[in-house]
Amino acid sequence: MRSFASDNNSGVHSEIIDAIIDANSNHAVGYGDDIYTQKSYELFNKAFGCNVNVFYTFLGTGANVLAMKAMTQSFNSILCAQTAHVNVDECGAVEHFTGARIVPIRSNDGKIYIEDLKNELHGIGSEHHSQPKVISITQPTELGTLYSVEEIRNLCTFAHSNNMLLHIDGARISNALAALNVDIKTMLTDTGVDAVSFGGTKNGMMYGEAVVFLNDKLADNFKYFRKQGMQLASKMRYISAQFISYLSDGLNIKLASHANNMANFLYNEIKDISLIELVQPVQTNGIFARVPNWLIDPLSQEYFFYTWDESENIVRWMTSFDTTEQDVVDFVSSIKKIIAENS
Amino acid sequence: MRSFASDNNSGVHSEIIDAIIDANSNHAVGYGDDIYTQKSYELFNKAFGCNVNVFYTFLGTGANVLAMKAMTQSFNSILCAQTAHVNVDECGAVEHFTGARIVPIRSNDGKIYIEDLKNELHGIGSEHHSQPKVISITQPTELGTLYSVEEIRNLCTFAHSNNMLLHIDGARISNALAALNVDIKTMLTDTGVDAVSFGGTKNGMMYGEAVVFLNDKLADNFKYFRKQGMQLASKMRYISAQFISYLSDGLNIKLASHANNMANFLYNEIKDISLIELVQPVQTNGIFARVPNWLIDPLSQEYFFYTWDESENIVRWMTSFDTTEQDVVDFVSSIKKIIAENS
Amino acid sequence: MRSFASDNNSGVHSEIIDAIIDANSNHAVGYGDDIYTQKSYELFNKAFGCNVNVFYTFLGTGANVLAMKAMTQSFNSILCAQTAHVNVDECGAVEHFTGARIVPIRSNDGKIYIEDLKNELHGIGSEHHSQPKVISITQPTELGTLYSVEEIRNLCTFAHSNNMLLHIDGARISNALAALNVDIKTMLTDTGVDAVSFGGTKNGMMYGEAVVFLNDKLADNFKYFRKQGMQLASKMRYISAQFISYLSDGLNIKLASHANNMANFLYNEIKDISLIELVQPVQTNGIFARVPNWLIDPLSQEYFFYTWDESENIVRWMTSFDTTEQDVVDFVSSIKKIIAENS
Amino acid sequence: MRSFASDNNSGVHSEIIDAIIDANSNHAVGYGDDIYTQKSYELFNKAFGCNVNVFYTFLGTGANVLAMKAMTQSFNSILCAQTAHVNVDECGAVEHFTGARIVPIRSNDGKIYIEDLKNELHGIGSEHHSQPKVISITQPTELGTLYSVEEIRNLCTFAHSNNMLLHIDGARISNALAALNVDIKTMLTDTGVDAVSFGGTKNGMMYGEAVVFLNDKLADNFKYFRKQGMQLASKMRYISAQFISYLSDGLNIKLASHANNMANFLYNEIKDISLIELVQPVQTNGIFARVPNWLIDPLSQEYFFYTWDESENIVRWMTSFDTTEQDVVDFVSSIKKIIAENS
Repeated sequence: MRSFASDNNSGVHSEIIDAIIDANSNHAVGYGDDIYTQKSYELFNKAFGCNVNVFYTFLGTGANVLAMKAMTQSFNSILCAQTAHVNVDECGAVEHFTGARIVPIRSNDGKIYIEDLKNELHGIGSEHHSQPKVISITQPTELGTLYSVEEIRNLCTFAHSNNMLLHIDGARISNALAALNVDIKTMLTDTGVDAVSFGGTKNGMMYGEAVVFLNDKLADNFKYFRKQGMQLASKMRYISAQFISYLSDGLNIKLASHANNMANFLYNEIKDISLIELVQPVQTNGIFARVPNWLIDPLSQEYFFYTWDESENIVRWMTSFDTTEQDVVDFVSSIKKIIAENS
Repeated sequence: MRSFASDNNSGVHSEIIDAIIDANSNHAVGYGDDIYTQKSYELFNKAFGCNVNVFYTFLGTGANVLAMKAMTQSFNSILCAQTAHVNVDECGAVEHFTGARIVPIRSNDGKIYIEDLKNELHGIGSEHHSQPKVISITQPTELGTLYSVEEIRNLCTFAHSNNMLLHIDGARISNALAALNVDIKTMLTDTGVDAVSFGGTKNGMMYGEAVVFLNDKLADNFKYFRKQGMQLASKMRYISAQFISYLSDGLNIKLASHANNMANFLYNEIKDISLIELVQPVQTNGIFARVPNWLIDPLSQEYFFYTWDESENIVRWMTSFDTTEQDVVDFVSSIKKIIAENS
Repeated sequence: MRSFASDNNSGVHSEIIDAIIDANSNHAVGYGDDIYTQKSYELFNKAFGCNVNVFYTFLGTGANVLAMKAMTQSFNSILCAQTAHVNVDECGAVEHFTGARIVPIRSNDGKIYIEDLKNELHGIGSEHHSQPKVISITQPTELGTLYSVEEIRNLCTFAHSNNMLLHIDGARISNALAALNVDIKTMLTDTGVDAVSFGGTKNGMMYGEAVVFLNDKLADNFKYFRKQGMQLASKMRYISAQFISYLSDGLNIKLASHANNMANFLYNEIKDISLIELVQPVQTNGIFARVPNWLIDPLSQEYFFYTWDESENIVRWMTSFDTTEQDVVDFVSSIKKIIAENS
Repeated sequence: MRSFASDNNSGVHSEIIDAIIDANSNHAVGYGDDIYTQKSYELFNKAFGCNVNVFYTFLGTGANVLAMKAMTQSFNSILCAQTAHVNVDECGAVEHFTGARIVPIRSNDGKIYIEDLKNELHGIGSEHHSQPKVISITQPTELGTLYSVEEIRNLCTFAHSNNMLLHIDGARISNALAALNVDIKTMLTDTGVDAVSFGGTKNGMMYGEAVVFLNDKLADNFKYFRKQGMQLASKMRYISAQFISYLSDGLNIKLASHANNMANFLYNEIKDISLIELVQPVQTNGIFARVPNWLIDPLSQEYFFYTWDESENIVRWMTSFDTTEQDVVDFVSSIKKIIAENS
């Protein structure tokens, strides 16, 4: 069964599998003191255009939570879009591990804007209120939308001028890089970002994400937080080998571009179906659409996908590195068939 | 370079790699709702001889910490050997995630005994003191020693008669099963154990451990703890596929037996070297020995291993599923050469 | 200098002081095992019309946080008005101590309504989302408004029918009882409330609040949470003695009625000043009003009070058990003088 | 009934009561921005001989826990005597609020010694181990024994030379000052102590303790930790007024001296009773003695006191600021009567 549910329903790209197999020989010191990990760090340095501090975690939740831990004390607050994964999809992992508060900012498009952030600064200096310390944005957002490089730079400037830090949840960061056609250095280094959760699992890797600190101070004690946060892999070489492959020869961009293209293809196939109303622009690899209520169940029988907002009949259809044109054609064909049967 | 540092310096067994590759086709629903995960659960049920509640985590620290979270409230305490991994090797992960206290029990052989546990019960019922709730033992212990099935049963009885629960940190549980030549049901089900951290990574797997609850009540809300504890794998099929292979055709026992045998072979090769004094009996796949101080550095140049107790010149040499007889012969030969040069 | 800043700027009522002095003789067993504490419990039982579980804390934050701890596990969420003290005025104390999330509900009048709560139930059963467990309302609200007895009953029914619990932050509960002219049993017992933070400090006591559990199960392990939560008073008799006085002969209602009356008196004195616009109805002892920006600073020179919303020029004026008619007259006279000078 | 159970079974000294009454007039800004609090800070500065950072908490547990929070991150550990209150008598409050570990050091006399601390430093720099950051000593210890000024100075030097901090749990610090006949500056400032939990409740105050930071950096964000830690009193003037009285005209020393003298008097009265064996030297206001098992129950009928170690029949008898010579005479007389009846 093919799925438009999530890019994590996909498998692992064959080059990633090959990298794992290649790394599987002989002994290697545990916990990251091995040649694969060393080599992968160099690829991150090259991509970011400077020496960055890279720490692998097992999963994106771990990357986000631990990055927050390094950026906050327990009396701080984290500002993010109401729709942010850290706010709604981590079962309270951030609050529990950091003790800090998440302050959700209203958002229609998944993005947060400086004007809305300003309202949250009034309690600074008063002991009765959690002190804002981190602005966390998701790029691309959970609604598939994008911040421009300029917007990221402005958010960084705003954060720093208010003694705050800027974090990017980059679970799908390569989809953003591909869509905006900019490189990592331009989007993440030159803008002044402090920390990135750099994802791979949703784009062809098996497991493993990277916390990348551009702000050196955040790395100081991070190794302890990672261990305490249950994210230190003993056989780390198998994560590192995946990232070596992922960051070599533009594999991450190649896979993300394909996923984005498939979403665009799907968009083109459905845009003329009047019963389907797009509720967000299609900028990366997800489509958010309001559909007739009677479409959801029969389509779900054939393809797994999520209803994003039940009360509004909004569905999310995600494409992936391994979505084929045929998958899209068949999917649209099922949609049309159900509509025909119900109209 | 070959290593006697830890069984996690080894690679991944070829059958495990094959299982991963086999699972890498088509789409699969994320987070465990897939056929690989379902099948792996059945293998656990079969091994334990009853329906158990299995939850995969990424690593052993995650399995231990989350199991403790399910078994405690923040005002509880956890009794374990002073030498236990949860006490000394998790950078405070248990305390941080559970809020509970760890009460270390003095131990010379890595085991805890009922007589010593009784001393810790005096504060029960008084609000000034953390309330003992979990007895956590490691099988085999961090010093390579073993609890007999009878000892485990008695500890369970003691725990339950004091309104406590018994947890086993089984990071190397297969080495214990192989060494004692008993099956899982006999050691873990029939004795009355409440929860097991069932490990695989130290015995040929790539990543992934299992929390197994024999006490059903502990499983009730565990899925939330796992998510909040950053241990819910999105592409879970790759952990499940490993466990399917690991638990099929006795692979886990075959690999553990080999590791145990290699430790025994190493023991036989060095037992007549008078300068090397064993400080623990060799019961599984680790050797703990007091050696001349001048042996440690030159031997470390050739083989990576840990000095267990610097003040006492005690070293730990671990064998693994992929340790060869030649590895042992070469290692002993290096030892003998260094001794000859220094005597 | 007289203050309209907060009812905690007031002193301690003379009868409370006398009760403290009376309790100050001879020795008393610490931590609550004394005759004063016993007697105070009986007064609570009488007021609630049943056997309730009473636990004293030092302050309202402690009462709220510990009540939440007893009602939640770390994967739960707590639903409350956006304006709730537990959401905005405790510096993240609830999140830090419980690990649970607070989900703020939009509110214009400080109250929450069942229709808005329904939207927050969609993630129930999914491990990705914190599970709603507590509805916490403040009575009277932080904006001085009131829930009717009927509204409380309906919220309890809604909570229980969704496997949730209802908590009341009653920092000023006596002001609500006085304003609605109902007794404790009618408002808090007969409606089905699970837990109340029963305040006294804002109404003439020196320190000390009570967590009252009507739901017996919540009390089971509470003594441990209180100790761990740093709220167990060693010389508890001095809190108990205050509550004995406070709950005897209707002192709490007498003091709260006076405070309410003074707010009403103030309201009557200013309602015809067209430059002052009330933004909430005056139902208890607080007035929320939009005033000319140029009024705030000069008035603050003479009376301490809080600007509730700087961007909207909304101020909060609180009356207290010890506010006199003369205080109000003088205050209004200052207001009028400043207006005259600026108009 | 008179008690030798704890110095917190005593009441409140009349001068403290008077100070509370004196403070009870007019309004005062809440949360510490009042003249009483200001004045009390000046008395602390004078006593310490420098500008110290003083923060009031409600109770000693709060002072200890919050001081630790300011001194640690969650990956740190706190070294203290096995017998320390923070280790055994706070129901895990330190671990829960800080996330850090407590590492108990074996102790026979309640004190810790540098030689024993050295063993705990081996894991520094390794991510697998909690990083030692605080040495916490109790002065006088929970066993009534004393560190000399020289010992405190040496512990501070040891702490600082290992990048650690020294904390004193001074729940009964005035008893130590009185017994050693040194002033606060000599014992706590000149020795290099970083933070003190400065107690009063066990020596005639009603409630309220002070966290005193001599190390300025620790105070930076402490106001937020105090609020989040549920220790910020709204009507703070009533704590401050107590401390003004307590630190004026040597009241704290006068009361502590009396308590110490009464313990010494009791010691002199019982030292020749051969059935009573002192197990700790009597240096402050507590007596720890091994007594015949048959003495404990009948004596408990007449006087409340704690059995310190049931298996060893060791009891603790505490004297207080309000223990009278007659109390001691009567107590000893009861002891002798019971012995006579049983011998």
